[in-house]
Amino acid sequence: MNDALQSLAGGMAGEGLDALLVTDPKHVYYLTGFASNPHERFLGLLLIRGEEPILIVPALDAEAAHAASSVTSILTHSDTDNPYELLKSQFGGKTPGTLGIEKEHFSVSRYELLADSVPAAQFSDIGPLLRAMRAKKTPEEVSRMKHAAELVEEVLRRGLNHVKSGVSEIELVAELEYLMKKVGASGPSFDTMVLSGSNTALPHGVPGDRIIQPGDFLMFDLGVYAAGYASDITRTFAVEEADSKLTEIYNTVLAANLAGIAASRAGATFGSVDRAAREVIENAGYGEYFMHRVGHGLGMDTHEYPSLHGLNTDIIENGNVFTVEPGIYVPGVGGVRIEDDVFITAEGPVTLTSFPKELTILHL
Amino acid sequence: MNDALQSLAGGMAGEGLDALLVTDPKHVYYLTGFASNPHERFLGLLLIRGEEPILIVPALDAEAAHAASSVTSILTHSDTDNPYELLKSQFGGKTPGTLGIEKEHFSVSRYELLADSVPAAQFSDIGPLLRAMRAKKTPEEVSRMKHAAELVEEVLRRGLNHVKSGVSEIELVAELEYLMKKVGASGPSFDTMVLSGSNTALPHGVPGDRIIQPGDFLMFDLGVYAAGYASDITRTFAVEEADSKLTEIYNTVLAANLAGIAASRAGATFGSVDRAAREVIENAGYGEYFMHRVGHGLGMDTHEYPSLHGLNTDIIENGNVFTVEPGIYVPGVGGVRIEDDVFITAEGPVTLTSFPKELTILHL
Repeated sequence: MNDALQSLAGGMAGEGLDALLVTDPKHVYYLTGFASNPHERFLGLLLIRGEEPILIVPALDAEAAHAASSVTSILTHSDTDNPYELLKSQFGGKTPGTLGIEKEHFSVSRYELLADSVPAAQFSDIGPLLRAMRAKKTPEEVSRMKHAAELVEEVLRRGLNHVKSGVSEIELVAELEYLMKKVGASGPSFDTMVLSGSNTALPHGVPGDRIIQPGDFLMFDLGVYAAGYASDITRTFAVEEADSKLTEIYNTVLAANLAGIAASRAGATFGSVDRAAREVIENAGYGEYFMHRVGHGLGMDTHEYPSLHGLNTDIIENGNVFTVEPGIYVPGVGGVRIEDDVFITAEGPVTLTSFPKELTILHL
Repeated sequence: MNDALQSLAGGMAGEGLDALLVTDPKHVYYLTGFASNPHERFLGLLLIRGEEPILIVPALDAEAAHAASSVTSILTHSDTDNPYELLKSQFGGKTPGTLGIEKEHFSVSRYELLADSVPAAQFSDIGPLLRAMRAKKTPEEVSRMKHAAELVEEVLRRGLNHVKSGVSEIELVAELEYLMKKVGASGPSFDTMVLSGSNTALPHGVPGDRIIQPGDFLMFDLGVYAAGYASDITRTFAVEEADSKLTEIYNTVLAANLAGIAASRAGATFGSVDRAAREVIENAGYGEYFMHRVGHGLGMDTHEYPSLHGLNTDIIENGNVFTVEPGIYVPGVGGVRIEDDVFITAEGPVTLTSFPKELTILHL
């Protein structure tokens, strides 16, 4: 059993769970090391309190599951079997009191089939439990995330060579996503964003045919998946020149980024990271132009728990990884965002991203 | 109201539905023209029998919904509102008898919230109804699918220029996905597959570092999304030369592909398409090497209803679009698959894909 599975099994009594069923393929991977996409077929990890965990996989995945899973008790079902009857048989004729399921991931169709075969006294939601576990990364997870960050920075570094006279936003996106595959990433961890000039004033703008021009700010927001984990970085550059207004905005955002990272310490609230970055921007007179939260949890998903908005009173713990990405977006003028991935350790915050942040002028 | 919504509303009485709630963003798009990704926020199209349809969207999507939706009665909810209470208020204090929901798309979490606010006598599944509607494409849908097919063929045409000495499978994948963006597609409709040499014998192989060699078969399976609709094509080429064994396999698969398309006629069963293609392969002595169904429905999803396996007795109708993709995979030797997208009309099958299919030799 890996650490996460051991901790989940050990916590069942405290949660009042007699049994639990994990069905999100991402969570099966997290708990067993077996990654798969079962499409519409049933995949589940069943824990009955005090018993060995059992992995249930489609027959065609049996070989792959045996090779990859740290859970060695593996049952298979073919397309003509009823996997819910297979589940039922594991309970030896007894009805579980409280059966935990992932209610946000479990469809009503499946729930009806499950409740038909395995009528439990109560179905409780194990989503919050898994979410909390995932927020505390293991050293192995952090090392994968560091690798994903290194890959995306290599992509950005090479991608900057393609910023040339006549190139458009969308062409740069295509180039970056090509480079992701080239450097060995599985692919983008979200839609790659390249915005230029006045388009940078749109925090969620969509890259288009706009040609990069001298005097533009040029914003890159990109990430990759590698070995199941995501990276996410934003850097903003000036093209040929940076006027004093944009330089002031840039340096304000950079100060906010650094202040947010500095505030990222175990024991503080997630909300305080947002407020630390926001204060810098407000003090510079740009408060109304920073209209989104400062960041989000990062891991197997690009956006996961926690959300770093100003009202979040949850406490930062060692092992958390999240983004710190303040921005200023002035309509008609332009915008800047600077984003890093921050890992919380006993020695303080460590940035997994290390791409230079001082204002850099690109030449066409 | 668009045709699909009109047909859904008109069919409610016959289905015994007093009201229905569509929540899959893809189906909201299909029925209203409004495309969005609400993430964890609530999005729903509510039809109460005999009343005007109502679209419920997150407040931040209000403007986009008003611009795109053919349903003009639009309600919004902010992050602090309870969208299920908003739903409840539409029923004017009455309890619906039978309320249709998409049980495969609706999570248990949401179901509990909905059932709490809007207790219906019965919740029935509208998934099969929507699936059946989607299987009959409108002329507008077919024209988008034709466009997606044209784009992927342009990608394949240009991609072949990159088959050069020293190039690997994975480099060709990166090149093809780059070209998808270049030609204006939204992106790949599934993981692009390029397999070479003995790897072509793996029907679900994963592209790797293998360098393309003279004497190889080289298989491309790719598709794009454009304007919300998918294309999907497979072509197999010979590199520098084709020995007599591979040529025989190629021509057998081509004959099976043509036989499958010819059998694709309204009134026949989906299973008969599989059997028509399979017979050609069996008669040539390769039956054991064609170990997958002949095709699948295509539309807003790359794999959708119907499944074209030999036992499917559902009847083909005008407006259906599906793939016909027989293959022969001989371990240690190599494999060939040839796939087209077929649209069923009163005049017979029309292929949306038109890339040449005679055996073509590529030169490095």
